[in-house]
Amino acid sequence: MELALLYSGGKDSSLAALLLDEFYDVRLVTAHFGISDDWHHARDAAAELGFPFETVSLDRRVAEEAVDRMHEDGFPRNGIQQVHDHALETVADLAVDAIADGSRRDDRVPTVSRAAAQSLEDRHGIDYIAPLSGFGRHAVDDLVAANFEVETGPSETVPKADYEGELRAVLADRHGEDAVGDVFPEHEQTYVHGRR
Amino acid sequence: MELALLYSGGKDSSLAALLLDEFYDVRLVTAHFGISDDWHHARDAAAELGFPFETVSLDRRVAEEAVDRMHEDGFPRNGIQQVHDHALETVADLAVDAIADGSRRDDRVPTVSRAAAQSLEDRHGIDYIAPLSGFGRHAVDDLVAANFEVETGPSETVPKADYEGELRAVLADRHGEDAVGDVFPEHEQTYVHGRR
Repeated sequence: MELALLYSGGKDSSLAALLLDEFYDVRLVTAHFGISDDWHHARDAAAELGFPFETVSLDRRVAEEAVDRMHEDGFPRNGIQQVHDHALETVADLAVDAIADGSRRDDRVPTVSRAAAQSLEDRHGIDYIAPLSGFGRHAVDDLVAANFEVETGPSETVPKADYEGELRAVLADRHGEDAVGDVFPEHEQTYVHGRR
Repeated sequence: MELALLYSGGKDSSLAALLLDEFYDVRLVTAHFGISDDWHHARDAAAELGFPFETVSLDRRVAEEAVDRMHEDGFPRNGIQQVHDHALETVADLAVDAIADGSRRDDRVPTVSRAAAQSLEDRHGIDYIAPLSGFGRHAVDDLVAANFEVETGPSETVPKADYEGELRAVLADRHGEDAVGDVFPEHEQTYVHGRR
């Protein structure tokens, strides 16, 4: 069975890939807006893990709506959710049996409710799988430490291909550099450098 | 990392075992009230899959409370949930790093909310993992068909070691044979006969 996993090069989506690897033909798919080359980091991480890799293009208008929402809210949560929903819809149009992402039990964003998952499955004729949604933060951390070489640091400096880099750029473009610091709190990111 | 998986010999807990196998030292644990020998079926299924197997004893008073509740409700859901909660608390006292069960995204019972999972983890110093909670019914059915030889039939006739057999016996004992048919609707069960 062919499965497309939304992939950022971070620890969560990398762990999701390992969990699914024995049961599906997993390809790693990075969704991006064509604004930066951040997706190269995901491509490199995928190569280090030995998975096939591809990209899909997202609609730039979704990025603009999302950053306007973040700017209005003063926090990124709802905008990130909009972008993730759009990315899932886009990946669900690929010729695969199943799609997946790295969302965890303890994530507050993005989340996919049971109703949203079933709607995605029914409309696209695919399975939606969230292999980490039954794992808490501590279990994920243990599994990442046991299975990957990782690099951790502030989110501005760690190479990563999640939506945040491109959304920061669009936000700065539409609302000024200061808006970026207002919306995105400093937080740690991780980038995977192959298996242990 | 040592993990104890609540095991019935059915397809869900068997699939959960395969998903966790690459990442944990998985032992399959069947919880029972000492009322019947149904747990032998789980032991045999575990042997066919090649996993270590053990049992834990549940408190018969919990079975009695649960069947009284089912009889009052006229349906089994809340009673089954009580028994599952008790089983998780019991397994969480084993000397392991993590416990797990076979609950799926689309199950209505038993369920373990995020808050309940975190409480279990905090009180016992273990991880609670629900490896199938990110998989819908269709994905589980596909994975079961691809990975196991299964036997399917009415729940009275398929050998299985979930709580239902013992609870039926306690219910008949306390409220009469007719109460069993009133509480438990006919449904299909599956029993796993080794890997494909």
